[in-house]
Amino acid sequence: MGREFDLINRFFSRAVPSGYLGGGDDCALMPVRPGKRLAVSTDLLVEGRHFFSGVSPETLGHKALAVNLSDLAAMGAAPLGCVLGLAIPAIDDQWLSGFSSGFYALADRSGCPLVGGDTTWSGKITLSVTVFGEVDEDRALRRSAARAGDDIWLTGTLGAPHVALLFLQNALPVAVRSQALCVEPALRQALELPEPPLQFGMRLAGLAHAALDISDGLLQDLGHILKASSCGAVIHYESLPVHPALSGFPEPLLPEAVLSGGDVYQLCFTAPPESREVILDQAAACGVDATRVGYITAQPGQQDVICENGVIVQTTRQGFQHF
Amino acid sequence: MGREFDLINRFFSRAVPSGYLGGGDDCALMPVRPGKRLAVSTDLLVEGRHFFSGVSPETLGHKALAVNLSDLAAMGAAPLGCVLGLAIPAIDDQWLSGFSSGFYALADRSGCPLVGGDTTWSGKITLSVTVFGEVDEDRALRRSAARAGDDIWLTGTLGAPHVALLFLQNALPVAVRSQALCVEPALRQALELPEPPLQFGMRLAGLAHAALDISDGLLQDLGHILKASSCGAVIHYESLPVHPALSGFPEPLLPEAVLSGGDVYQLCFTAPPESREVILDQAAACGVDATRVGYITAQPGQQDVICENGVIVQTTRQGFQHF
Repeated sequence: MGREFDLINRFFSRAVPSGYLGGGDDCALMPVRPGKRLAVSTDLLVEGRHFFSGVSPETLGHKALAVNLSDLAAMGAAPLGCVLGLAIPAIDDQWLSGFSSGFYALADRSGCPLVGGDTTWSGKITLSVTVFGEVDEDRALRRSAARAGDDIWLTGTLGAPHVALLFLQNALPVAVRSQALCVEPALRQALELPEPPLQFGMRLAGLAHAALDISDGLLQDLGHILKASSCGAVIHYESLPVHPALSGFPEPLLPEAVLSGGDVYQLCFTAPPESREVILDQAAACGVDATRVGYITAQPGQQDVICENGVIVQTTRQGFQHF
Repeated sequence: MGREFDLINRFFSRAVPSGYLGGGDDCALMPVRPGKRLAVSTDLLVEGRHFFSGVSPETLGHKALAVNLSDLAAMGAAPLGCVLGLAIPAIDDQWLSGFSSGFYALADRSGCPLVGGDTTWSGKITLSVTVFGEVDEDRALRRSAARAGDDIWLTGTLGAPHVALLFLQNALPVAVRSQALCVEPALRQALELPEPPLQFGMRLAGLAHAALDISDGLLQDLGHILKASSCGAVIHYESLPVHPALSGFPEPLLPEAVLSGGDVYQLCFTAPPESREVILDQAAACGVDATRVGYITAQPGQQDVICENGVIVQTTRQGFQHF
């Protein structure tokens, strides 16, 4: 359905003024003071589309903010605050209490205070979260800044949110389902409580070249960097950080989850090889796992995933789509 | 239903950090640079709740932005940009083209570029608009800044959006309906194409004391200023700027529309008497009608509307409610 959204976006892609960055990156940028940019990201989440109707309100509150903070992280921006639009079918104190607890807990930990909002009625729960941050004009991590020779890095791990989603949708093969049942808590946590590496993203500003958050799957999201930067990539499959709960999961589920599984909300970024040591130091200082998984090439259109035996696993840019 | 929303807001009213202004005013304020505040306002609009299902997409695009710009105007903030969340049931090129035209036309005229957004599916059209602006820290027009002795001013006119809404809902008495039919275009324009006085709002910053935009009706909205400022008000009914299309409309419809009719998106502000001349000059320079309609008293709880014969028309703070 991605192509359908391209159809919609045609109507909303007019040029923005000089000093602004419009759509097509993780955040929009606006000039607020000399040398600084206001980074803004917004998401609209609809019950039954973006989250299950019965999901715990605490985790929903957490995730509604996390998926936006992840965009600030991918821009290298420091959070300033957020606003929440909330449309609900009825007033349910327990639900509201849980939702606000989950939301505030992450907002507090992230230094991103909830400063305003709007509440109204709707047949299905609909959430609109907008986050604001600030980043140095010349240090913002834009998708278009990757260069040939850059290392490609990932934070965190891949695959678990995708398997969790299939598990909750009863869409796993029976044999795998029992395997998933044994690690259900870890899978659910990866899907429902993503922890975007905000602090690390801020430290990457000025250190990394390009960055984005993985929401639609590694191949598809990396493809956005490659397209915006007019370059290619080689990924070493065995280097990819697979979530430990997926150990022993069979093919073709595992490579599919790792390469194309979405809902990850960790960063994919590129940086010059001379920054390797400082990147690992900064990651350690932030308690983040950073893994080098490949490199950027000068060949636009190239997106090779190579196994140790030299076989190219998959070269499409297709990834998981939300819709 | 206002009381029900108070119930919801309990869950989202935690304190914000020093230098921030949280909920309860037209915009939230965040520190972005010394002496400056980032002003942010967000609205969630749901089909069938905030707008009729068949409304023209051009006017919907205009109004979705206008109701937020009106909050910037009421804060005295200069627009920086906006983001749009759009959930729709299906892709309709004609609808999207009309909606984006109406939205962009007002955004362009207001110097408030659309910088980003999110699109998704929903059974009913749901719009989330967030606007950003900037205002001097010590010149922001807060609801709490009214002082006894201030004049009370209004921009634009009152009443027409309320009568238009009743007309479109087929809720006008038959006799009045034919009268409304004669001025339908003017009524619809007042309801569907509000023009918030952004430029004038920016000039009021530092000149006026308190301000807000009239969305729920003069009495209810003025009541917010009085409560926040711990003072009272006397309004001269005959001074109120009634929309010309309502000339000759009967009681009790007319005073109800004028005093309690919502959806106006014009400003109510207070300013010291010595600023009268400069306020009128600034209004003229902006092509805005500004009318002095009463004064602020030192008596909290007082909200008298006085006719020429001295009769108090109405003293409740109840106004039109959206829900």
